[in-house]
Amino acid sequence: MRGAVLYGPRDLRFEERDTPTIIKPTDAIIRISATCVCGSDLWPYRGITPVPQPTPMGHEYCGIVEEVGSAATSIKSGQFVIGSFFASDNTCPNCRAGYQSSCQHAEFVGTAQAPLLRVPLADGTLVATPDVPSDDMVPSLLALSDVMGTGWFAACAANVKPGKAVVVVGDGAVGLLGVLSAKQMGARRIIAMSRRDSRQKLAREFGATDIVTERGDEGVARIMELTDGIGADSVLECVGTQESMMQAIRATRKGGYVGYVGVPHGVELKGEELFHAHVHLHGGPAPVRRFLPELIDLVWKRKINPGKVFDLTLPLDHVAEGYRAMDERRAIKTLLRP
Amino acid sequence: MRGAVLYGPRDLRFEERDTPTIIKPTDAIIRISATCVCGSDLWPYRGITPVPQPTPMGHEYCGIVEEVGSAATSIKSGQFVIGSFFASDNTCPNCRAGYQSSCQHAEFVGTAQAPLLRVPLADGTLVATPDVPSDDMVPSLLALSDVMGTGWFAACAANVKPGKAVVVVGDGAVGLLGVLSAKQMGARRIIAMSRRDSRQKLAREFGATDIVTERGDEGVARIMELTDGIGADSVLECVGTQESMMQAIRATRKGGYVGYVGVPHGVELKGEELFHAHVHLHGGPAPVRRFLPELIDLVWKRKINPGKVFDLTLPLDHVAEGYRAMDERRAIKTLLRP
Repeated sequence: MRGAVLYGPRDLRFEERDTPTIIKPTDAIIRISATCVCGSDLWPYRGITPVPQPTPMGHEYCGIVEEVGSAATSIKSGQFVIGSFFASDNTCPNCRAGYQSSCQHAEFVGTAQAPLLRVPLADGTLVATPDVPSDDMVPSLLALSDVMGTGWFAACAANVKPGKAVVVVGDGAVGLLGVLSAKQMGARRIIAMSRRDSRQKLAREFGATDIVTERGDEGVARIMELTDGIGADSVLECVGTQESMMQAIRATRKGGYVGYVGVPHGVELKGEELFHAHVHLHGGPAPVRRFLPELIDLVWKRKINPGKVFDLTLPLDHVAEGYRAMDERRAIKTLLRP
Repeated sequence: MRGAVLYGPRDLRFEERDTPTIIKPTDAIIRISATCVCGSDLWPYRGITPVPQPTPMGHEYCGIVEEVGSAATSIKSGQFVIGSFFASDNTCPNCRAGYQSSCQHAEFVGTAQAPLLRVPLADGTLVATPDVPSDDMVPSLLALSDVMGTGWFAACAANVKPGKAVVVVGDGAVGLLGVLSAKQMGARRIIAMSRRDSRQKLAREFGATDIVTERGDEGVARIMELTDGIGADSVLECVGTQESMMQAIRATRKGGYVGYVGVPHGVELKGEELFHAHVHLHGGPAPVRRFLPELIDLVWKRKINPGKVFDLTLPLDHVAEGYRAMDERRAIKTLLRP
């Protein structure tokens, strides 16, 4: 089969790769219905994270189970399934605590930009939909594999509750779905920090009540103006830079909550400032598996439509153009169909 | 009157100071029944925090109201009262959220090592006991002014609940009272990290079930051994150094809680490690005022006896010896009687 392989900065090739097979009895092989390019794929694509050797890419996926190992008992061939970018046994103490992305046996699933994918720990990782979905629902189900689960986790970690004032830092797919999550959780006010028209539009569609275009200290000052000088109850940090993290912490009220899901790049928090900020801080790699049953249900009942973040759909063999479009900010998120 | 004044490293004098008077109509003057030396007083005493000019000292206090300003309506002369080291109006949005130490009108109360003390925002700051207490109860009531309230906040911030496994980093008065707080909140297991016999003894008396003498990576490894390799549910950080903070974060289970109350000195948290630690982090200057009614009730009913942390009692005019004894670790905490 052919799949995506990253050779170095902006050198993404669609080329022959080994067809995956069952290696361990707990594995499953799934035939990809749709996969996509993640904002975090751009870190190595742009050379910010080094790529020491040609690396297969892709960690978001949904599709039909093709084959299961002899020890996989709950997942069956023919089911439509979604899994997280971290395979998890869903039985260890960390999984039982709801932190499947820190499963004691976690394995990164990183070869999904291809027609076939091996998923380890299939029983613990994959969740089947009630039936094979109609084609128009596939983008929203695919979004659950990472970006929607991650935005949802940011909102949970930021303690979003009915009536709260929420700020979302970052207008990528995760930030936009953080807006959708906050709306779904009943936030009264949702302030999206965004400078780009198309993203502001989608943020409003997902439930943003206010848009702030300023950044850094000016952005914080603007949030303070909008919140009677006290800051937001909940702030979702969906970028991962020093500036975005400090913006999030400083925009939060005393006793408020910061949920951070942007993979930190060079972020350092000064103990003294954090101490006096008086915020709650929680985040990390989203335990998407925890949320899959609930989120599948919301998509299945057409209560949420996170698939709207895909504003470019390409055949899988055009994956390199999918990366380019996101790198050049021509697209928010690229969906790929094998 | 005479009170404590710090001139520079280890130069603490008991000398003539102005007798405090009502400056604002919301002030009260209280006659100190007992005051004490705080672990945080040792930072400037040791020269780690600079002392640019002679500075009156002391931020823990209880005593009898001597005089109230014309705008103070709930506090009356003759009442026995306790207040926090931060005066607060107890009505601003931060106070109402339970973060009185971040009151929009907070003022530090820093001249308590003296026979008389001016307390700003008396109505919002001071809490009266049901009656004038018996003399043997005064040390426990004094402890509520800072160290007990701070240990209690650490346990709250670390989400201590019945049945949880708790670690306390730091065996100063705050750490020891963190142990007492965790016990009071129903923790199943309380692991105190301490190297000194007298403090281990008091930790056990307050409810510690285990003592760990190792520090740093070895300390973390020991906690992992004691918690089936997953870490503690709740960790109280009661020191404020880089080592103690990292020890706390690394000893916490995925999805667990770190409550940190040690004033950070040179602490820097790397975003990436924090991200993958998957812990909840909360702390800061303890909003002692929030807890005073509940804690006064517990002391009044003799359910807790936090005054046990005072292992040295001196007349106020011996305050310099009180600092020396703590600096040389001959005493955990010095109580001073005017």
